[in-house]
Amino acid sequence: MRFLHTADWHIGKTLNDFSLLNDQLATFKQIEQIAKAEHVDAMVIAGDLYDRSIPNEAAVKLLNQMLQKLNLVDRLPILAISGNHDSAARLSTGTDWFAYQSFFLNTNLARAFTPITIKDTQFFLLPFFGIQEVRNYFNDDKIKNVNDAMQRITAEMVKSFAPDKHHVLVAHFFAAGSKRTADSETLIEVGGLSAVTTDVLSPFDYVALGHLHNKNALNEERIKYSGSPMKFSVSEANQEKGVWLVDTAPFCVKWIPLTPVHDIHLLKASFDELITTADRKPRDDFYDIELTNHDRIPDVLNKLREYYPKIVSLHRTHQAQKVQLNLSKKRAQESPLDLLADFYSQTMGNKMTSQQRKWAEDALTTVMKEEN
Amino acid sequence: MRFLHTADWHIGKTLNDFSLLNDQLATFKQIEQIAKAEHVDAMVIAGDLYDRSIPNEAAVKLLNQMLQKLNLVDRLPILAISGNHDSAARLSTGTDWFAYQSFFLNTNLARAFTPITIKDTQFFLLPFFGIQEVRNYFNDDKIKNVNDAMQRITAEMVKSFAPDKHHVLVAHFFAAGSKRTADSETLIEVGGLSAVTTDVLSPFDYVALGHLHNKNALNEERIKYSGSPMKFSVSEANQEKGVWLVDTAPFCVKWIPLTPVHDIHLLKASFDELITTADRKPRDDFYDIELTNHDRIPDVLNKLREYYPKIVSLHRTHQAQKVQLNLSKKRAQESPLDLLADFYSQTMGNKMTSQQRKWAEDALTTVMKEEN
Repeated sequence: MRFLHTADWHIGKTLNDFSLLNDQLATFKQIEQIAKAEHVDAMVIAGDLYDRSIPNEAAVKLLNQMLQKLNLVDRLPILAISGNHDSAARLSTGTDWFAYQSFFLNTNLARAFTPITIKDTQFFLLPFFGIQEVRNYFNDDKIKNVNDAMQRITAEMVKSFAPDKHHVLVAHFFAAGSKRTADSETLIEVGGLSAVTTDVLSPFDYVALGHLHNKNALNEERIKYSGSPMKFSVSEANQEKGVWLVDTAPFCVKWIPLTPVHDIHLLKASFDELITTADRKPRDDFYDIELTNHDRIPDVLNKLREYYPKIVSLHRTHQAQKVQLNLSKKRAQESPLDLLADFYSQTMGNKMTSQQRKWAEDALTTVMKEEN
Repeated sequence: MRFLHTADWHIGKTLNDFSLLNDQLATFKQIEQIAKAEHVDAMVIAGDLYDRSIPNEAAVKLLNQMLQKLNLVDRLPILAISGNHDSAARLSTGTDWFAYQSFFLNTNLARAFTPITIKDTQFFLLPFFGIQEVRNYFNDDKIKNVNDAMQRITAEMVKSFAPDKHHVLVAHFFAAGSKRTADSETLIEVGGLSAVTTDVLSPFDYVALGHLHNKNALNEERIKYSGSPMKFSVSEANQEKGVWLVDTAPFCVKWIPLTPVHDIHLLKASFDELITTADRKPRDDFYDIELTNHDRIPDVLNKLREYYPKIVSLHRTHQAQKVQLNLSKKRAQESPLDLLADFYSQTMGNKMTSQQRKWAEDALTTVMKEEN
């Protein structure tokens, strides 16, 4: 059989207060087109369907519309689980009715051990879980971490393996393989979760993961993150987004990229360069701008917004965040002028000129007078 | 055919912070038993399934469990609409899948005009609506109030009447018949909605209404509120709760009462009487207590809670709420002692004794000294 593996739709997510609903719908349509063109037998959505446990009404409507289109109009079976961003209780509304139409949405650990069989494959739908939940389920307090938990879960699932079928796990967690490159961005995304080692997942023919937004987060042939179908943060600006097409026999995994509806661009330039080159850049895309100017530009964000309406982040090459103020006792005894000079040089990367120092002295003298 | 008419379940409602979920489940089981024992062909739930637009997770789980039991286990068709307490968008999750199992949940005005036919009856499922929604739907700004709106809606529905069928409207609004007794409680429940006159509803063989919690709110043979299945406020303490059983041919409406799981009692007594009689009253029921004592009883609420743990309201026969303080200029010039004497007599219903007046004078003298 052939299935499409996607995850982390995060319907309702905003990017710096910009709604992404229209982009999410357009991206969904690309996924739907791929599913139809490639004649897939099922859609796998590996968790984080919504961006938050209580999505707003527009998000609820949109996700319903998407799932309804795929399942009831296009007549595609869906295999989905809840992720850490979803409320399992809220997402589970209607699941018992969905199943009659081959839309299998699992938000419940206990149901993860009954596989869903479609053609030559058994799918095990494991929702995002907490360790305590697994301890309770197996009545075993010796489960100390996510990896212990996953070992128990896998062992239990293997008991239901039909020998003549392929076995696919759909799950939502942080998988750590020996080849993993632990870059800081990935660790930030994990949000404090401990990891499942990939050897625990070896009984499965394929593991369709959700959670990490980068399809390259894991370098394994048969254990894959699809990543999110869209860029959801500036840190994802350089990631290619897409979906996996998986054939079970003969086994084959193929990446199909998705086209960004409104891309996120990282710009590093001076104010003048940004203005001059603006007409060559897509006006409705998202921009993260690093301003290289040293000098203060009044109302700079609003000025730039005339050219780049959707700025999601504006920062400076030379800015205060690099300043490390030493608030020790010694420092507290320094003169206001020395403190100011220090602050200036740390912020701007060069010392005050003698004219600037003169201005500062005059200003401080005036302030001191007013205080006394 | 025979159907059961209920409404206003308000799943997730609390009574003075006491959860009603267990009572709601127990009440549901009574309704389910009636449906089975009476061999109904369908369940009608006329809106306000939830108590609020964003119910908590426990409420979401409970309503899903109830609907799943009725529809998928007991195999009863369900005809339901959204009420003003429901979020139409949130409640609509899954509706397209529900319909395959004869669970017809309508939250959408446009779908109200396509009847659902079960046996000999066409059901028109009209969700709670706003006037603007109806204006938009008919593209008609001349619709000025709810009654105009309902006239247009009824006229449109009549076009789809099959002559050989009975016609039932399921709706959620405030219906005002000429025989209506407009008591203040009913008006409070209406919450500022204007009313639909019952003549507008005459084309229907039966109108199953939700919104008002009192089954006697309307005195019509074929237009009925089922009321809520439970008492949800002190003002409902003396109402009998239940469901209607409706037979279409020959037409027959029968009231079947439900037993309160934990009743709400109105008590009016002195503190001593309340303590003495407590052991003859169901400890886990809800109590609205009117205390007849004149004297102040320190920590009275907590003392009473030892005997009546679920007090939802405590008030006094002689209490400050009857006091009308006149804050005119003239009053502002009165002496503190005169003001206090006035306040005392208004609150307690009798004048201060000379001893009380002496104590008040002494206390005021002390206070005045401290102020200066």
